[in-house]
Amino acid sequence: MPRWEHGSLERLQRAAFELFEEQGFPATSAVQIAERAGVTTRTFFRYFGDKEEVPFADAGRLRAALVEAVRHAGDIAEPLHVVTLALAGFDWGSLGSRESQRRRDLMIAANPELLERDLIKQQQLGDGFGDALRRRGVDPDVAELAARVGIQVFRIAYQRWVHAERDLDLRALTAAELSRLARIVPVGT
Amino acid sequence: MPRWEHGSLERLQRAAFELFEEQGFPATSAVQIAERAGVTTRTFFRYFGDKEEVPFADAGRLRAALVEAVRHAGDIAEPLHVVTLALAGFDWGSLGSRESQRRRDLMIAANPELLERDLIKQQQLGDGFGDALRRRGVDPDVAELAARVGIQVFRIAYQRWVHAERDLDLRALTAAELSRLARIVPVGT
Repeated sequence: MPRWEHGSLERLQRAAFELFEEQGFPATSAVQIAERAGVTTRTFFRYFGDKEEVPFADAGRLRAALVEAVRHAGDIAEPLHVVTLALAGFDWGSLGSRESQRRRDLMIAANPELLERDLIKQQQLGDGFGDALRRRGVDPDVAELAARVGIQVFRIAYQRWVHAERDLDLRALTAAELSRLARIVPVGT
Repeated sequence: MPRWEHGSLERLQRAAFELFEEQGFPATSAVQIAERAGVTTRTFFRYFGDKEEVPFADAGRLRAALVEAVRHAGDIAEPLHVVTLALAGFDWGSLGSRESQRRRDLMIAANPELLERDLIKQQQLGDGFGDALRRRGVDPDVAELAARVGIQVFRIAYQRWVHAERDLDLRALTAAELSRLARIVPVGT
């Protein structure tokens, strides 16, 4: 990568988030984002297929790391636990401050195009978890259920964590959500 | 509605599904769909905001019926059960034959634009369930969890039902999935 492009990704993301907040997501174009970041439009499209992709620049790396955690989990006997532990144990701080993640989350929630993109990333993550569990010898039906439900359980804990007034423990929040689930699953079914 | 438009919705849907299957979703335009259906493009846009909306013409009515079922559930003590019962108890046959639902499901799975739309409809359904449960006095945290997890449990049962060789009982499949969940929720959490 040519030297002048150093830091382009970060500059593009910062520029995009600024513009999304200033003038709204629908009114912002790739050309405007590139201009604000001081790079060419061509550079924008080297990093992103479209402007919807900007908040998900880390999604591929994130999914790989999370699926890897499931693939190497010590004990696979409780697959639902394995999935929630993989998610809660990830170093979410490595994706930026909690405040920046909170702003990103609000931006996604406010824009259907971004929410759709977010949901499809969750779906793909579920596919990856299901596949990793099956490769570990987990029954396919159990793998699918643990992957899908585990993500929902974690999502609720993450929402609580990212929007909390003070800094809470994401692992503890996730464990609490899993306990809640154990209490509401109908007995004797 | 003028008399000549009678049946336009059904004709548009059938035309769209034919074209999606013949030439693929990306290559098909609203103009082509309207032409095949023998209506004006303006009529197409009276029914659908875009071509992505075609497979979801029933989504609003479906959501209303499902949320209504939760709102009027006899016993709200087991909210996860209430959600899965509302979903499994719906008359899915009223949306078309199982074969047509199977083709619709394959079409959605094969096209990211449709999958995104499908996922956001699921998300909105979850919002509706959560809201209905809260209005019935269910603890907000439980309501959210039951709504999200209940949809995942049902989705897996529905996939099994819609793609099965022979006609299975969707309620029984959903109950089996809920039992599976009861078995994989970590004990003592």
